[in-house]
Amino acid sequence: MSKMRKPIPSDAKMVFKGKIFEVWQWEQKMFDGSSVTFERLRRPDTVQVIATETESMILLVKERQPDTEAYLTLPGGRADAGEDPLEACKRELLEETGYTSDKWELFYEDDPVGKMEWTIYTYIARNCVKVQEPHLDGGEEIELEPVSFDRLLSLTDDETLHVGSLKELLLRARYNTEDRDELKRRLFG
Amino acid sequence: MSKMRKPIPSDAKMVFKGKIFEVWQWEQKMFDGSSVTFERLRRPDTVQVIATETESMILLVKERQPDTEAYLTLPGGRADAGEDPLEACKRELLEETGYTSDKWELFYEDDPVGKMEWTIYTYIARNCVKVQEPHLDGGEEIELEPVSFDRLLSLTDDETLHVGSLKELLLRARYNTEDRDELKRRLFG
Repeated sequence: MSKMRKPIPSDAKMVFKGKIFEVWQWEQKMFDGSSVTFERLRRPDTVQVIATETESMILLVKERQPDTEAYLTLPGGRADAGEDPLEACKRELLEETGYTSDKWELFYEDDPVGKMEWTIYTYIARNCVKVQEPHLDGGEEIELEPVSFDRLLSLTDDETLHVGSLKELLLRARYNTEDRDELKRRLFG
Repeated sequence: MSKMRKPIPSDAKMVFKGKIFEVWQWEQKMFDGSSVTFERLRRPDTVQVIATETESMILLVKERQPDTEAYLTLPGGRADAGEDPLEACKRELLEETGYTSDKWELFYEDDPVGKMEWTIYTYIARNCVKVQEPHLDGGEEIELEPVSFDRLLSLTDDETLHVGSLKELLLRARYNTEDRDELKRRLFG
C-alpha cells in the first residue's frame, strides 16, 4: 500500500535465473553524472484471499511449511507461470480449504519490497461454500481457522498472524469506527 | 516485528553472488518424504535511525534516488561489509544529516521478507546535535524534514512515508494512549 512500484528498466539484463528469483542489473546514471551498476530482483507474484461466508466467518489458515514454525495467515500462494491473479486465488482457495466463491473482488495490490518486482494481490471472496476436502501438496500442513471479524481485528496483537500490509487496515479498523465500517462494507458487501 | 527469522541452512550452497543479493539453494525434505530444491536470498543488513533532539523534533529526511520519486523516511541505509549496525547508524546519520548523538539505543530488529536473510535494525539516537553539513554521494538527494512527535503520528496517512514496520507502532501510538505514552518514553527517555 505504501510502497511505490519500481519496475526493472527495459535495458536491464537478467544475470541469474533461479528456482524462484531472477536477478537483473543495469547501468544507472547518478545525479552527479557518474554511472553505477544497479541490481533488482523479480519473482512470481503471490495472492492472498479474504474468504468470507457470513459476517461472523472469515477463513484463516494455520500453516506450517517444512522449514518454518506454524503461523496464521490467509489462504493463498504463488501464481503459476502465465496464471492470472484471480485464477491463482481460485486455485489456492480450493486446494488449501476446499471452498469456492462466485463473488470475487480485487481488494488491493501491494509491492512490499523496493528492490524486487513482486506484487501481492489481495482478493475478497464472498459467500464462500465448501465443495470438497483440501488437497495439500507435500510441502504444506494446513488447518482451517475460521474467525469472526472482531476476532480478526484482535489478532493484530498475535505475532504469528502474517497477512502483509492488510495488518495496517486491520489496526485502523480496530481503533477507528469509520475505518471499521468501511472495511466491513468492503468485506461483506 | 511480526516476521520470524528463517536462516539459510548450513548445507545450502551459494549459486549466485550479485552486487547486493546472494542466491542460496538446498535440498529440503518435505512432509511426505520427497525432496525439493528450496531457494533463499541473503543481502546486507540495513539500519534506520530515529534521531531526536527535543520532544518536538524528530529528524525525518526527504530522499530521492536516481530511479525513484521523492519519499519521506528515517536517516539510514545499508551496512558496509564487516560494519556493525550501530557503526552503520552513526555513519549514515552523520553523512545524511550532519548530526551526531552520544545516546544510542537499539529499538528493535525486523526481518521483513520471509525468503530473504535481511535484518533492518532500528536505533534511537537521543539529544542529537548538528556538527557538520551533510555529505551526500552521487546517488542521493536528501532534504532534512524535522517533525514533531504528533506530526509523525499523523504522517501515517501519508503514502510517501516509508518507515517499514515502525508504521505499525506509529498507528498504535496514534490511536491508543498507553501505546503513545510507551513510545514517547522510549524515544525521549
